[in-house]
Amino acid sequence: ADSAMRQQARARLDQLAIPHGALGQLMDVAEDLAAITRTMTPSVKRKAIAVMAGDHGIVAAGVSKFPQAVTVEMVRNFLNGNASINALARQVDASLTVVDAGVAGDLTELYQHNALWNRKVAPGTADFSQGPAMSRAQAIQCLEVGIEVANYLAETTDIYATGDMGIGNTSPSSAIIACLCGCDIATATGRGTGLDDEALNNKIAVLDNALAINQPTADDGLDVLTKVGGFEIGAIAGLILGAAALRKPVVIDGIISTAGALIAASLSPACRDYMIAGHCSVEPGHRIALNHLDKAPLLDLRLRLGEGTGAALAMNLVDAAVAVLTEIATFEEAAISQA
Amino acid sequence: ADSAMRQQARARLDQLAIPHGALGQLMDVAEDLAAITRTMTPSVKRKAIAVMAGDHGIVAAGVSKFPQAVTVEMVRNFLNGNASINALARQVDASLTVVDAGVAGDLTELYQHNALWNRKVAPGTADFSQGPAMSRAQAIQCLEVGIEVANYLAETTDIYATGDMGIGNTSPSSAIIACLCGCDIATATGRGTGLDDEALNNKIAVLDNALAINQPTADDGLDVLTKVGGFEIGAIAGLILGAAALRKPVVIDGIISTAGALIAASLSPACRDYMIAGHCSVEPGHRIALNHLDKAPLLDLRLRLGEGTGAALAMNLVDAAVAVLTEIATFEEAAISQA
Repeated sequence: ADSAMRQQARARLDQLAIPHGALGQLMDVAEDLAAITRTMTPSVKRKAIAVMAGDHGIVAAGVSKFPQAVTVEMVRNFLNGNASINALARQVDASLTVVDAGVAGDLTELYQHNALWNRKVAPGTADFSQGPAMSRAQAIQCLEVGIEVANYLAETTDIYATGDMGIGNTSPSSAIIACLCGCDIATATGRGTGLDDEALNNKIAVLDNALAINQPTADDGLDVLTKVGGFEIGAIAGLILGAAALRKPVVIDGIISTAGALIAASLSPACRDYMIAGHCSVEPGHRIALNHLDKAPLLDLRLRLGEGTGAALAMNLVDAAVAVLTEIATFEEAAISQA
Repeated sequence: ADSAMRQQARARLDQLAIPHGALGQLMDVAEDLAAITRTMTPSVKRKAIAVMAGDHGIVAAGVSKFPQAVTVEMVRNFLNGNASINALARQVDASLTVVDAGVAGDLTELYQHNALWNRKVAPGTADFSQGPAMSRAQAIQCLEVGIEVANYLAETTDIYATGDMGIGNTSPSSAIIACLCGCDIATATGRGTGLDDEALNNKIAVLDNALAINQPTADDGLDVLTKVGGFEIGAIAGLILGAAALRKPVVIDGIISTAGALIAASLSPACRDYMIAGHCSVEPGHRIALNHLDKAPLLDLRLRLGEGTGAALAMNLVDAAVAVLTEIATFEEAAISQA
């Protein structure tokens, strides 16, 4: 992002007719937006949420509470407009694009829907407790899917948000976080959709073993995506890379999206500047990943849903950050006495 | 609030096609709104922010960084539409009402403005480091101002937000919090608009002495308001009492508004049910007061401005909570497989 424009924004924010820095994190986001968009009057009006969907072979190891069929069922729910992300996208007036990046079930009848893209890399990843989740070519392919979505939406989009759907996808996310943040898998692993203690312990053991089998190269995002990733996670990483290349901000959702953000930052560190952390979920790995990316989340509402819901909620705060930069008078403009 | 409607809301939220409880705090707010409004389809569309303004004799003791004249200047800024609360009120499409509950300066030329109410109880409180801030009759009068504002706005308002303007008003707020939460004044006192260490120590000493001189009755909100309060804080308490009587939700802003909320809750414990905590500021007393009220703040963005800014920002999340209750399909409605 542009450091001169960041300084210019900071200079104005320092002069606003408020106690110095009193609008806290909104002012940080305002600066980020100026630096990202290279303007003192950033527009974030036209909002696009992309929900990447994929399935995971590792569900065979009993890491998820819900059956795999739910991925397809939820994609249908998204297209019918009745899911959480639909409700929250409407609330921020954001468009919603759903991408089949690798769902296991058959979505043929749904592809006619305008909001659903068929970019299925494969019907679910391989079970990475037994070997790599995907081939290196497939990893590149799902990254390209995300870049393609970012580019396609660019003409009508000022700001992106990431979202995910995929039963079992906290498992690859935790594995990615352990690899790219250099932490223990147990500290990065949580209950997902609601595992009990026994199931959580099993999940940790499965992931620990999976990392031992796959031996991903710790600082190589593409190798990590290949060995322990997911198609939707790669597509999210691609969306972030695409948004950054277009110099547009992208709001990151929960632990799955943030795992994608880690992959993207590993491939291109500069893209980190274009990310806005929407929220911090209750999944313990999410906080670790946000800290690694040095991103302060805007919300902390005990969310653990994904779909892009936390990112959608945060988009209102991004609007507010623009208002802080563009609509508040300075001490001089408003003729207010200073301290 | 209505516990049967709360249970009905909870029953629906438990069936939403998401992992159980996965929308976290939004679901708590959704329940609260159902209980407050006695309906499964609460409306929070018509938003009204009331900014109560008042001055404080205690500024003579050097407790604030900014000169008292700023209170008048900022009221003018609110009416010109160029302050932070104007920008953030526009962003949530909320109306803004400014009330002179006790500003020291002359606002005569501004009273013709539709958005400004002249309800000046007195031109600033007395210096409560020397004796009571106001008379008991004045304390009742400023409470009544807030109730009047709530009643006047009721016909066009689904949800209220509180705001404040008053140079020096973190001092009475911290004193109120120390009294009504039973904590030490030092732990409830912060840097306000930006005091340095020396000035902070002076502020604590002044307040400590003021409490010793006034001896407010610890569990009597009216006595606390009289002895160490502020006219705008009383008006905020009144607004909350009025909103609760009208069975409408009210979003509480920062430490000054939350001090008002403590007064209101002391006078009528039931009104607590109608409060939604907008955010937690960096003022240490704010967290203490929120904990005492058993309210979880929706935002934590390092704000320390007041004016209603944190409450305005949170109103978007209240909209989202309604969407969660009313727009998301259940497992059964969406034909999603359960865990």
